[in-house]
Amino acid sequence: MSVEEQAGNCDLSQGGQSHRDMRRGEDYMARALHLARRGLYTTDPNPRVGCVLVRGGQVVGEGWHELTGEAHAEIHALRAAGEAARGATAYVTLEPCSHYGRTGPCAKALAEAGVAEVVAAMRDPNPQVSGRGIAMLEAAGVATRVGMLEEDARALNVGFISRMSRSLPWVRLKMAMSLDGRTAMASGESKWITGERARRDVQHLRARSSAILSGVASVMRDDSRLTVRAEQLDIRLRCSATRVSHERGLRQPLRVIVDSTLSLPTASRCLSEPGRSLVATVSPGGPGALEQRDHFRRREALVAAGAEVVTLPAAATGQVDLEALMRYLADTEQCNEVLLESGSRLGGAMLDAGLVDELVIYMAPVLMGDRARGLLTLTGLETLSQRRRLSIDDVRAFGPDWRIIARPVGDSQAP
Amino acid sequence: MSVEEQAGNCDLSQGGQSHRDMRRGEDYMARALHLARRGLYTTDPNPRVGCVLVRGGQVVGEGWHELTGEAHAEIHALRAAGEAARGATAYVTLEPCSHYGRTGPCAKALAEAGVAEVVAAMRDPNPQVSGRGIAMLEAAGVATRVGMLEEDARALNVGFISRMSRSLPWVRLKMAMSLDGRTAMASGESKWITGERARRDVQHLRARSSAILSGVASVMRDDSRLTVRAEQLDIRLRCSATRVSHERGLRQPLRVIVDSTLSLPTASRCLSEPGRSLVATVSPGGPGALEQRDHFRRREALVAAGAEVVTLPAAATGQVDLEALMRYLADTEQCNEVLLESGSRLGGAMLDAGLVDELVIYMAPVLMGDRARGLLTLTGLETLSQRRRLSIDDVRAFGPDWRIIARPVGDSQAP
Repeated sequence: MSVEEQAGNCDLSQGGQSHRDMRRGEDYMARALHLARRGLYTTDPNPRVGCVLVRGGQVVGEGWHELTGEAHAEIHALRAAGEAARGATAYVTLEPCSHYGRTGPCAKALAEAGVAEVVAAMRDPNPQVSGRGIAMLEAAGVATRVGMLEEDARALNVGFISRMSRSLPWVRLKMAMSLDGRTAMASGESKWITGERARRDVQHLRARSSAILSGVASVMRDDSRLTVRAEQLDIRLRCSATRVSHERGLRQPLRVIVDSTLSLPTASRCLSEPGRSLVATVSPGGPGALEQRDHFRRREALVAAGAEVVTLPAAATGQVDLEALMRYLADTEQCNEVLLESGSRLGGAMLDAGLVDELVIYMAPVLMGDRARGLLTLTGLETLSQRRRLSIDDVRAFGPDWRIIARPVGDSQAP
Repeated sequence: MSVEEQAGNCDLSQGGQSHRDMRRGEDYMARALHLARRGLYTTDPNPRVGCVLVRGGQVVGEGWHELTGEAHAEIHALRAAGEAARGATAYVTLEPCSHYGRTGPCAKALAEAGVAEVVAAMRDPNPQVSGRGIAMLEAAGVATRVGMLEEDARALNVGFISRMSRSLPWVRLKMAMSLDGRTAMASGESKWITGERARRDVQHLRARSSAILSGVASVMRDDSRLTVRAEQLDIRLRCSATRVSHERGLRQPLRVIVDSTLSLPTASRCLSEPGRSLVATVSPGGPGALEQRDHFRRREALVAAGAEVVTLPAAATGQVDLEALMRYLADTEQCNEVLLESGSRLGGAMLDAGLVDELVIYMAPVLMGDRARGLLTLTGLETLSQRRRLSIDDVRAFGPDWRIIARPVGDSQAP
C-alpha cells in the first residue's frame, strides 16, 4: 500500500462518522419517499409527500399525505411522535408549506413542536411560495437542509412540478403496438394487441393520472370507457398505493375528449361512467346562424347526457389548440399528470406540438404487416435528419409484451 | 422437518459425490463449448467443435476445430495430451465422426489413444451418420454418454443442424427500424437509422453466416457491399473468435442476390468485393427469342463482371421460388446460417413462406412517422387473429439502440 493510499484511508476513517450519518439520513429520506408513494393514486391534485421524524437514531413518528383535503404528511408525523418530536430531525420529501390553509402552515407546526432540523428532498416547485417554508423554519431557529434524494422526489411528483413550474401537465402518450409498429388492422380492429399484464399496467398508469385524454374518433371507434377499473388494479404488484386507493375510494381521472365538431354521440359509454367527462371543442367554424344553432344544440345534448363542454381557442387547422387545452387542464382543472390514449393523429399532433413528455409503448410479440395502421402521424418528416429523437429510459417485459418508456429529446431537427 | 424431508436429505448426501462429479463434468463440457466458439467465424461449412481430455481430475489436452480442411477438435486434443490420453475422459461438443476423410475417423483415433470414456454434448445431426461414431467407440470398448449441455451445443451449431436435419439453412432476418417500425423515409433514405454499436453487431452476425441474402432492389438502392469489414469486427467484444478470424484470414460469406429479371447493374460494388457473388434468377418469362436472348446477354454480362448466376424454379408469382433457393443454398452451397438483409418485400415473402427462423431487429430511439417505409410486407392479414405471432428471446441495448431477437411461432393463424 502506498503512502498516498494510507493517507487516503486515514482521511476516510476520520470522516467515517459523518459519512455514516449521511447514509443513514438517506435511508430515512428513502423511507419518507416510500411513504409518499402510498398516496400515488389518492392525493391528486396535491403532491405525494412523506415525512419521517427521527430522534437519537430512532424513528419517533411517520406520516404521509393520503387524500386531498386531509392533513399533510408533517402533521401526521407530528401527531404520531407527540412529545418525542422535540429535538428531532424531520425528513420530508417536499419543502413544508408556509400557507395558512385548512391545517395551517406545516413549517410553523414543525417549529412549534420543537423539531430541531428539517431535511427536505426538494423545494416547493411553485415559484410563488418556493423557499418560504424554509425561510419560516429558519426564522424560527430550525436548522434546514434541502436536496437529499432530490431526483427521486422529483420523479414522484413529476406532474405536480410540471404544473407548478410551467403551467402544463406532464403528458404521457400511451400506445400499444406490434413489433412492426402497428396499432390496428387496416379495418381498425385493435382489440387486443397486448396481453392482460400489459393492460393491467395501463390501469395503474390511469390511476395515477389526473386526466385521461383522447380524441373523439378513438372514443367512438372503441366506445372507450376511459376509467380505472378497480378489479384490474393489481394489489399484489403495487401494494400500498393500490390498497389505499381501494380503502379510500377509487378516484376516477377526468376524462377529456378532444372533439372540435362536437360529434361525440350522447349514448357514448364514457358519459355514464363514474367521474367527470370533459369535451373540449372550439366555436363553430361557419359564420352562419345555422352552424351556430347546430353547435349549440349538440352542446346542450352532450351536457344533458352528462358531459361538460369547454370551448377553447382554435389552432390554424380549425381544431382545438392543443397547447391551450393543456394550459386549461393545468390551470383550471389542476391536472398534474395526463395520460394520452388516442390514435395516431392526436398522438402525432401532440408530439408535433412538443406537448408529450413521455412515451409509454407496449410492444406485443406479433407482426401485423405494412397495411395495418401506423403508430404516429407526424408532419415535416421528409429526410432522415428530421426524424424525432427519443431517449429510451426503461425497457421491461410484461408477460409476453414489452414496455418501452421513452422521452422526446430536444433539437429533434438536428442531424 | 418431516420424515420424508429427512430421508430426502439422506439420499442427497449419499449421492453427493456423483452429483459433484456431474457438476465437474459439465464444467469440462462448458470449457469444450467455450473452445468450440473460437471457430465461430472460421469453420464454415463445418460445425464448431471443441474437445477437452481429462484424467484424474486434470485437463491433459484441449482442442477445437479451427478451419475447414484442418484437423478436428479431437485430433488437436489428442496431440496435446500425448500419452496422457490413455485412460482419460473426452468431453466433446459433438459426436466424434466415424468417416474416413482427410484425418480418419475421430472415434477411431480416440479409441486407439486409449481414451476410456467419451462424453458428447449431442449426436451428429446428419441422419446418415448419426450414432455411428458412438457405435464405433462402443465397439472398441470405450464407454460413451450423450446429451451433456446439449441445448448449448445445439445453439452453437444451429445452422449446421438445420442443414443436416432438414436440408435448409437457419435463416436470420436482420432489420433496422425506428421505434415506430419504419426502415426508411418515404424517399428511401435509410442511412443510418441505427448507431455504430448496432452496426458493429451486424458485422458479427455477417461473420458467422455462410451467406448474406438480399434482393436486387435493396442492393441497387444502397449499392450494398454485403461484406464483413475486418475493422468493424470488434476484438474486445468477442475476443477469441474474432482474433482467430483476424489471424487465419477473414472468410467472406457468399453474397446471394435474388434477381428474377437479372437487373443487377454490372458496376454494382458487391461484384468487385472479395468473395463470391451469386445471382439467383429464373428462366426468362416470355416465350419469345428476344427475351431469351436479352436474358442470356444480361447473364453473360454479370458473369463477366464477376458474378455467378444460378437459374432456379419460379414460384407462381414468376419470381424465384424462395424455398427452392434455400434448398439450393443448403444442399449445393452447404450454407448453414443465412443472414437475410433486405427490404420489406423479400423479408415479408420469406416470412410468408415460413423460411425465416429468427428475426434480429435493431430498434433505434427515433420516430419516423406514418409516411416512412414499413418493416414487412405480409400477405393475408385482414383480421387481428391472422397476425403473425413471435416469441421474443432476447432484448438488449447496443449503445442507444435496442436489439430484439424473436422467432416466429407456429399456428400463426390461430386466434
